[in-house]
Amino acid sequence: MQEKITELLNEKNMKELKATLSSMKPADIAECLDNRPSEDTVLLFRLLPKELAAETFTYVDSDTQQSLINMFTDEETESIINKIFADDAADLVEEMPAGVVKKILKNASPKRRNAINELLNYPSESAGSIMTIEFVNFRPNMSVEEAFAIIRKTGVHKETIYTCYVIDEKRKLLGTVSVKDLLLSDYSAKISDIMDSNTISVNTGDDREFVVKQMSKYDIMAIPVTDNEEKLVGIITVDDAMDVFVEEREEDFAKMSAMVPNEESYFKTSTFTHAKNRLVWLLFLMLSATLTGVIISRYEAAIASVPILVSFIPMLMDTGGNCGSQSSTLIIRGLALDEITPSDAFKVLFKEAGIAMLVGAVLSLINGLRIYFMYRGKEDINSFSLALTVSLTIFLIVFLSEAIGCLLPIIAKKLKMDPALMAAPLITTIIDTVAIVIFFNIALAILPV
Amino acid sequence: MQEKITELLNEKNMKELKATLSSMKPADIAECLDNRPSEDTVLLFRLLPKELAAETFTYVDSDTQQSLINMFTDEETESIINKIFADDAADLVEEMPAGVVKKILKNASPKRRNAINELLNYPSESAGSIMTIEFVNFRPNMSVEEAFAIIRKTGVHKETIYTCYVIDEKRKLLGTVSVKDLLLSDYSAKISDIMDSNTISVNTGDDREFVVKQMSKYDIMAIPVTDNEEKLVGIITVDDAMDVFVEEREEDFAKMSAMVPNEESYFKTSTFTHAKNRLVWLLFLMLSATLTGVIISRYEAAIASVPILVSFIPMLMDTGGNCGSQSSTLIIRGLALDEITPSDAFKVLFKEAGIAMLVGAVLSLINGLRIYFMYRGKEDINSFSLALTVSLTIFLIVFLSEAIGCLLPIIAKKLKMDPALMAAPLITTIIDTVAIVIFFNIALAILPV
Repeated sequence: MQEKITELLNEKNMKELKATLSSMKPADIAECLDNRPSEDTVLLFRLLPKELAAETFTYVDSDTQQSLINMFTDEETESIINKIFADDAADLVEEMPAGVVKKILKNASPKRRNAINELLNYPSESAGSIMTIEFVNFRPNMSVEEAFAIIRKTGVHKETIYTCYVIDEKRKLLGTVSVKDLLLSDYSAKISDIMDSNTISVNTGDDREFVVKQMSKYDIMAIPVTDNEEKLVGIITVDDAMDVFVEEREEDFAKMSAMVPNEESYFKTSTFTHAKNRLVWLLFLMLSATLTGVIISRYEAAIASVPILVSFIPMLMDTGGNCGSQSSTLIIRGLALDEITPSDAFKVLFKEAGIAMLVGAVLSLINGLRIYFMYRGKEDINSFSLALTVSLTIFLIVFLSEAIGCLLPIIAKKLKMDPALMAAPLITTIIDTVAIVIFFNIALAILPV
Repeated sequence: MQEKITELLNEKNMKELKATLSSMKPADIAECLDNRPSEDTVLLFRLLPKELAAETFTYVDSDTQQSLINMFTDEETESIINKIFADDAADLVEEMPAGVVKKILKNASPKRRNAINELLNYPSESAGSIMTIEFVNFRPNMSVEEAFAIIRKTGVHKETIYTCYVIDEKRKLLGTVSVKDLLLSDYSAKISDIMDSNTISVNTGDDREFVVKQMSKYDIMAIPVTDNEEKLVGIITVDDAMDVFVEEREEDFAKMSAMVPNEESYFKTSTFTHAKNRLVWLLFLMLSATLTGVIISRYEAAIASVPILVSFIPMLMDTGGNCGSQSSTLIIRGLALDEITPSDAFKVLFKEAGIAMLVGAVLSLINGLRIYFMYRGKEDINSFSLALTVSLTIFLIVFLSEAIGCLLPIIAKKLKMDPALMAAPLITTIIDTVAIVIFFNIALAILPV
């Protein structure tokens, strides 16, 4: 499709170009626009019928949005900004530079401008900040026939019409009616008789993660949002909720790899920002790891008398780090999905102890046998003592690593910090130190150093 | 709510219990049932009205489902199994032990049994395996009024009625009509005139990840699934697609922490399974790390003459591992979200080189200064040479780590392997060896060893 558009553009065959674009999906048109110089972008965009243009505008990336608005006439800006959904318009205002925002707000209708301002006033992680203010509402004493008339009249501009909301004269939420219910009821039935008054709703100030959990628990496609006076002010649709869920989990994973989370895609993020996002944690972890070095240097005498000890350090540190990060990954996931709460700390610790017992036994047995047979018969080394030293160390390290890996995220959650920070990188650094201390103390006790 | 149910149960107040349960949401009832002994579970379940019972059944966890079916009469099993959606029934058959499956299939209607068997025949990661076979279909020559009549008659049993599918006499997919379109059209309009014939569909054999990407790209709430003869056989709804997306990403993250992915929740997984899922990779990584040890032991002479070198090993290994895991995490994410493709390898490498330049410069400068001032004036140590050795090593390690971290996932993808396997644990082990070799070679060149 891309090639066909390019070809028609080169031929300046506007008629055919218009026909081709009109038959395409907004997402595909957006893909074409994103990959072209901005003169072509605005030229192609102007060939689109109005409705398709507005829809396509919400699919293109923010660079394209910016260059389009820059080249738009005031009339074009006005038409787009008043046609897209209010929450998309508010997102746009939030993302664009000041000059573009000025042009947007100048051309927005007064009603639209108010809506944008109101949406921008909600705290950034709140339900209010992700809701849409376009929804269909009925009064309880309407008939099904009247309800259909309202949908026919206003529905096409609303983000979802499949769940409609019943409110009283003070805009208090009374219940919900799905279009399914309407379709399956008599035309003369009263809304109050068919509505579901047992409605799950959230408050504008609720955390957006809570909203997502409610929607997924109750399998809701659109959840109503009320203000502190229980007035219905908006709804959150399932696609927006899923975006939040994905974003929050991706943030966790960035943190779990010692990075500052970043919403932009890999290539869109500048080299400088990439470096900055990674450096914060790298510096901290590098300096922390120095501590492990200081501790090693206290065992110089032991190293000097049994130099082979040094060669086990990487294996012991890595195994401890891997065990710790395995258990912290599972616990962070459990906390994020509400499968685990801080009050489960002892239950988790007990379970991890059992796992560590099995894992530690297998790892230390295999490693012990490997060392015994590898060093048997070598001069200066008692292979049995060496095997015993390493095996005992591994067993203890596995135990402590899993304990640290499972407890730190829980403690973080308890202290209202982000559990995702207590992941592999930090845990590895802590476990390194623990591993060194255990290893050399066992060596000092067992080996002739 | 939980306490109220317990209280009423103890009082044996069945009438009140029935009323309370009937007013609750299926998800909340399911939560009550999951946390009770199985005699209570079946007692409470039997108090539910039929429709609510069937819906609640799909919300309870699989242990509860199993104990319920075990205690059900044949009539109860029949009522549930024929009332839930066919795809839920197929999932149930897949999860339950043989004895329970036998009871389910015995009581399923012949039509239901066929549907279950057909669904179970699709490969496990295919579109066919996650589709639902309940959908509303029209013929192109129907009027909007006739379409509404069909929805009213059959719609209540269909998983989604908001998008309806237009098929010809051979069940070939011709287009889609949303209920929104129907509501906004004249009763006399013909379906073929209002349908959208530019339909995005997938094949039963398509990978389920591809389905999710199509749905998210085009913002589709339900995508039609056709067989190899282009006949419409099912649809995939957005909630099922999102479950797949989340599951696939969670699998990635498990693999990225060197674990075998596991769908069950933390506590539901047995200690033995936990240990098994973790051991596979731990063993492999432990034995690989041994290689690093072997390499260290080749530098015994250097260590003996400048023992302080050993104390930098943990810091160098950790910094390299962290850099590598940062870039691999970002690349794995980019590959999973299709932001990066294998053909971008050079572009990525170029970008990472720039980032490594910045990150490496900062880390080696800070560390060099720290070492220079810490060891200045100490006997036996030339603090400038030592600082230079460590700084140079860090710079090179950062460079190589980011290169390894970004290339391995891309290579894996190119070789049709899972990029998530090329994450922190494996990369750390590889980088450990690289770090040791670089460090001691630079030390041998600069320091008097």
